[in-house]
Amino acid sequence: MAAESGDKWILTVTAQTPTNIAVIKYWGKRHEELILPINDSISVTLDPDHLCTTTSVAVSPAFTHDRMWLNGKEVSLSGDRFQNCLRELRSRASDVEDEKKGIKISKKDWEKLRLHIVSFNNFPTAAGLASSAAGLACLVFSLANLMNVKEDHSKLSAIARQGSGSACRSLFGGFAKWIMGKEENGSDSIAVQLADEKHWDDLVIIIAVVSSRQKETSSTSGMRDTVETSMLLQHRAKEVVPKRVKQMEEAIEKRDFPSFARLACADSNQFHAVCLDTLPPIFYMNDTSHKIISCVEKWNRHEGTPQVAYTFDAGPNAVLISHNRKTAALLLQRLLFLFPPQSDTDLDSYVIGDKTILKDAGIHEMKDVEALAPPPELKENAPTRNKGDVSYFICTRPGRGPVVLNDESRSLINSETGLPK
Amino acid sequence: MAAESGDKWILTVTAQTPTNIAVIKYWGKRHEELILPINDSISVTLDPDHLCTTTSVAVSPAFTHDRMWLNGKEVSLSGDRFQNCLRELRSRASDVEDEKKGIKISKKDWEKLRLHIVSFNNFPTAAGLASSAAGLACLVFSLANLMNVKEDHSKLSAIARQGSGSACRSLFGGFAKWIMGKEENGSDSIAVQLADEKHWDDLVIIIAVVSSRQKETSSTSGMRDTVETSMLLQHRAKEVVPKRVKQMEEAIEKRDFPSFARLACADSNQFHAVCLDTLPPIFYMNDTSHKIISCVEKWNRHEGTPQVAYTFDAGPNAVLISHNRKTAALLLQRLLFLFPPQSDTDLDSYVIGDKTILKDAGIHEMKDVEALAPPPELKENAPTRNKGDVSYFICTRPGRGPVVLNDESRSLINSETGLPK
Repeated sequence: MAAESGDKWILTVTAQTPTNIAVIKYWGKRHEELILPINDSISVTLDPDHLCTTTSVAVSPAFTHDRMWLNGKEVSLSGDRFQNCLRELRSRASDVEDEKKGIKISKKDWEKLRLHIVSFNNFPTAAGLASSAAGLACLVFSLANLMNVKEDHSKLSAIARQGSGSACRSLFGGFAKWIMGKEENGSDSIAVQLADEKHWDDLVIIIAVVSSRQKETSSTSGMRDTVETSMLLQHRAKEVVPKRVKQMEEAIEKRDFPSFARLACADSNQFHAVCLDTLPPIFYMNDTSHKIISCVEKWNRHEGTPQVAYTFDAGPNAVLISHNRKTAALLLQRLLFLFPPQSDTDLDSYVIGDKTILKDAGIHEMKDVEALAPPPELKENAPTRNKGDVSYFICTRPGRGPVVLNDESRSLINSETGLPK
Repeated sequence: MAAESGDKWILTVTAQTPTNIAVIKYWGKRHEELILPINDSISVTLDPDHLCTTTSVAVSPAFTHDRMWLNGKEVSLSGDRFQNCLRELRSRASDVEDEKKGIKISKKDWEKLRLHIVSFNNFPTAAGLASSAAGLACLVFSLANLMNVKEDHSKLSAIARQGSGSACRSLFGGFAKWIMGKEENGSDSIAVQLADEKHWDDLVIIIAVVSSRQKETSSTSGMRDTVETSMLLQHRAKEVVPKRVKQMEEAIEKRDFPSFARLACADSNQFHAVCLDTLPPIFYMNDTSHKIISCVEKWNRHEGTPQVAYTFDAGPNAVLISHNRKTAALLLQRLLFLFPPQSDTDLDSYVIGDKTILKDAGIHEMKDVEALAPPPELKENAPTRNKGDVSYFICTRPGRGPVVLNDESRSLINSETGLPK
């Protein structure tokens, strides 16, 4: 190592990367190892203030192995997916020089230097909120910065894709499209930005984290089963999705909320339909998910035009995208009417994220939740209130892409020991 | 009226008709009024001892209107579907002579004579167990007998079809196929018998009537919505079902249970998948339905070959078809382990129908239910027991087609007044 300050130096980079939610779904691979999908997909990036991964990466001649810590626990890096990302990044690394610290790393050194990676999610991992997408994107983005990989975000997305398919879409803020590509080696299976987070900034997103006791099918094995057994999936991938992708791009470009909502809801439902058409069938949504859909559908129909879009990934949590702040406040009233918190929960931990939506909804304390009237479109059916069916709500919005955090205090790695702080 | 015994005579016929459960599903019409389907379907007829409709029909010159009573309440006959059936039957009526009673009705009289119809289901109508299929089939079958309609059961099935699509399959015992037909007037959209109830008589059927608070989408409006909005339904009807129908006919002919089970489960799941792909999405299955599927799938996989097939119609109830009495007893043990009755329910009303299956399962009293061990294939997951999720179980089997009940005491009509007994 051509480091001038001796063998004790440690160089670190810290970055923050958002999670994303697909509005045209990715489900099914045409190549398992390279993670090449059978159709394009489109996502909204979620505000990293509320949902993101922060990752610090460090390199030092003193490190003897590549090591990684996730949410405070050391995890193995031996999996193919991690190894593929590390190999791809090392092969693209360039010379690095830190004049202040007097560190010089030449391109060829990277093959021998070992890395420490420390990663944290700012949201509960068990909640099933696409933590692997943000996590792998952040790993690739932070290492690319550390290693001076001179490639644009789309090229990096092809590396992140090999760690976790949907991670490629987390390299961009706003709205991203994962292009399935045609090449056998996957070089053209990359994400691109459709619009940044300022393009359509009145959208408000409310996530209902749904209580669930059921162990879920992992998306990796679930989508493999669907590819192998569903008689409907290929028709979806070849005939349905290509049209929807075009229409969704247009809806996003024009900020056409009714089209956006119709496409997002239809595609979420179709994804869960092909899961159900799998042998054995996969159920990601539960009765609470169904109730949330039913609430949104009735409201949208009552208003004559969509107020809110819903989309569900490989779990029971609902991601609800509101047209604007006003509809978000009306939505939150409906959600809190139908799903009030358990009596031992306080409001502050039941609705997290952007709490101004709660204020807009006129809800300041728990008794405001208790006093909520049933929504007019449900009045005839005497709707029941389902205490405990939702664990909590997160209020958020479309957000920015990955950023490097230059503030040393944000680093998760102790700059003396190279270990987690 | 050429009735020799004066104007006070009443002529009655009483018949009993089974319900049926589709194992290749009917979902979607190509003609709303004639009830012409977009694909063939195949069903198993259920033993009328446990699930059937009994209908008495009467004709008298003293009757002033066509009238009908269903489960003790007078109901309107003004709907198009009833009217279509009555018109079709009247146009095919023949001369009738009852020498003993001295009654003679000539073909042309039927246009003027009015009818009384009294119908009862021997199972709770609210349970969502295809009561309309048995009901309409019984109405057509009993009237055809009363009116001396000289047509075979397949021709009659085309009339019943116009009352309720799946009713056409209830004209046969054992296994029936509803051929979609090609003619615009629906004349070739008829049911035929694939095999009678003796052909495969070791099958045992257990129905789990699932508790549900949700109001369900009627199948008529649900399938209309699916036809109009699902992007997957036509692919199912044109590409998937025709192959499955052939394979299912072969499985039934050869009594090939593994193929029968795989096809029935896959087709039930695909029917629910296209419901989910509908706008707004239709959910007929609930968390309890999902738990039952999961239990069966795990057991089938554990044994290496299917022990039980499941199928769900437009509601949360599970229809479970066991290979034989032995697997039925093992299935019932599993079901009672996972879904024990509420403490205030007695075993005798919790498992109804053919109670010998309960004895085979070694369950004689409630404490035998309490003492059940978790099934070996679930042991690792420490399965919970879901008290109250199932209302009751019905043990039954494939059964016979419609029969005329000659025993006057079985008539539901008072032979003096022409009104319900």
